[in-house]
Amino acid sequence: MAIKRLGNQTIKFESPPSIVGTASIVGPKEGLGRFKDYYDLILKDNIYKESSWEKAESKILKEAIEMAIKTSNVPTGEIEYLVAGDLLNQITPASFAARELGIPFFGIYGACSMIAEGASLGAVLIDGGYAKNVVVAASSHFCTAERQFRFPLELGQQRAPTSQWTVTGAGAMILSLKQQNPHITSATVGRVIDMGSSDLNDMGTAMAPAAVDTITKHFKDTKRGPDFYDLIITGDLGSVGKQITESLLKQSGFDVSDKLTDCGVMIYYPEQDVHAGGSGCACTAVVTCSYIFKEMLKGKFSKVLLIATGALMSTKSSLQGETIPCIAHAISLENL
Amino acid sequence: MAIKRLGNQTIKFESPPSIVGTASIVGPKEGLGRFKDYYDLILKDNIYKESSWEKAESKILKEAIEMAIKTSNVPTGEIEYLVAGDLLNQITPASFAARELGIPFFGIYGACSMIAEGASLGAVLIDGGYAKNVVVAASSHFCTAERQFRFPLELGQQRAPTSQWTVTGAGAMILSLKQQNPHITSATVGRVIDMGSSDLNDMGTAMAPAAVDTITKHFKDTKRGPDFYDLIITGDLGSVGKQITESLLKQSGFDVSDKLTDCGVMIYYPEQDVHAGGSGCACTAVVTCSYIFKEMLKGKFSKVLLIATGALMSTKSSLQGETIPCIAHAISLENL
Repeated sequence: MAIKRLGNQTIKFESPPSIVGTASIVGPKEGLGRFKDYYDLILKDNIYKESSWEKAESKILKEAIEMAIKTSNVPTGEIEYLVAGDLLNQITPASFAARELGIPFFGIYGACSMIAEGASLGAVLIDGGYAKNVVVAASSHFCTAERQFRFPLELGQQRAPTSQWTVTGAGAMILSLKQQNPHITSATVGRVIDMGSSDLNDMGTAMAPAAVDTITKHFKDTKRGPDFYDLIITGDLGSVGKQITESLLKQSGFDVSDKLTDCGVMIYYPEQDVHAGGSGCACTAVVTCSYIFKEMLKGKFSKVLLIATGALMSTKSSLQGETIPCIAHAISLENL
Repeated sequence: MAIKRLGNQTIKFESPPSIVGTASIVGPKEGLGRFKDYYDLILKDNIYKESSWEKAESKILKEAIEMAIKTSNVPTGEIEYLVAGDLLNQITPASFAARELGIPFFGIYGACSMIAEGASLGAVLIDGGYAKNVVVAASSHFCTAERQFRFPLELGQQRAPTSQWTVTGAGAMILSLKQQNPHITSATVGRVIDMGSSDLNDMGTAMAPAAVDTITKHFKDTKRGPDFYDLIITGDLGSVGKQITESLLKQSGFDVSDKLTDCGVMIYYPEQDVHAGGSGCACTAVVTCSYIFKEMLKGKFSKVLLIATGALMSTKSSLQGETIPCIAHAISLENL
């Protein structure tokens, strides 16, 4: 059997799965940001008629999945697997959403890299012949993430200039055997990279080397360069991490200055006071499932390299003096 | 393309991947249990020369992976993916192990079902043609789990009769394209089932319905019954959950009384004072990677149905009044 791989880290899909429907739900702050016209639902508040932010996050995730299924026109009964995750301990928002939906469930964890990790596995399930339709989803919530990873919101803690704002929202995409644009043509699965960064208020610096590792591997494995893509978009490096990534890539011989952007840099306007930009699983998930998907459908972009980055620490690992291990997974999205 | 599926939830592998090597490392208490002669390494204490139990857990997981790679005779450079998870917040033991190993990493979360979730995905990656060799691993640690999910150990909290003892250890298996026994021939991917149980000291009762759902789906999808298997072994239902599972299966028309056992029931001797039995990701992982694997090699078992069960709650979801969502993933292990 021929191995469907390129180089050391890249999967090449033989019959590239299609994204046949997406949905994005965001909170009010995101609804004032740059992609406000692309989201499917903008919430009026962060609690969404639930008794806790955690329950609201699970509801947002579940509803994004249901909306994506609806827009895809695939009957729910024909969605064979749900691949999903989120930032909360034991990925409870995803598990509770899976409970309501009843779809066979692969729970994943890759911090903010999850929409690309999930899309890679979902595409493997389809291209490999194990499913006709798979839904991939990820969520995050500013209020649940802040109180889990940082401080109680009530404390009104001052934020560092390098800190990022966790996006409230969920993105879901339906991958299918059906052949239509856009397609997932390859996936470069990341290794865990840790250059010794330990500042929890500066995730961009910690994650940039992982992004660089995966991007350079992707170029090497696929024998493509930045020229191949209309858009190279990282997950949630923010302005600090994006700058480092651009400069490290230049040192590696790849000039991406006219192609590289970052979901975290783009998702809010600078005047929204989010310091280095957006973050959280939902950051990459909602930008992919709204702006990128819709602009690929319209033909503005035809070849997109999406690199979702994740910081894999926990509060406990940081308290125990560990540095921040990071990962980045890349997927190629192409109109064929 | 023909879809490699049976019924609604079961993947049928076309070229069933082989388990070509395993390793199991356990703590001292497990080393006094029923499978003491099957483990590859029994630790003298739970801290393993580290400064925290969490760091010890990560080290155990990393070393189990390295040992499994060594026994498989597959060069480390030819292991294309690591699929792994554990119970700790943000699966830090797995991420730190992945950092040390440098193998492209899919992080997963399915609580104690993880060795079967990982083996399903690993087998998909191989049978689907994306890799020649994949390592799948899971860990848990009594001391890290107790203090994260329940009480500080120093409190000496009394334990309920239905409670289970989290296994300290890690199991790892190398899945390969090479054709040798035993093989993973199918995987039945579970749905999240929640029958309203909320007692955190009785995981067996909570998880039993998920086990029953997956086992009955497996039988229905594969048109097999209990007779097909030499051994039907659930993950960590313990004595309470096993009894419920057996009785619910009987109500569904499947008499498994002479075939069903449970890793949690078997792993300790009753006199080890573990109440309802063992639990934790490592429970199923080490039993699979030691006893089951080695007895399949010797031919004692030729057809094994392994159903790993997981309880997907977090401390926060329980404090917020949620019941316990559960999942079970099943894999068929067969000598062909």
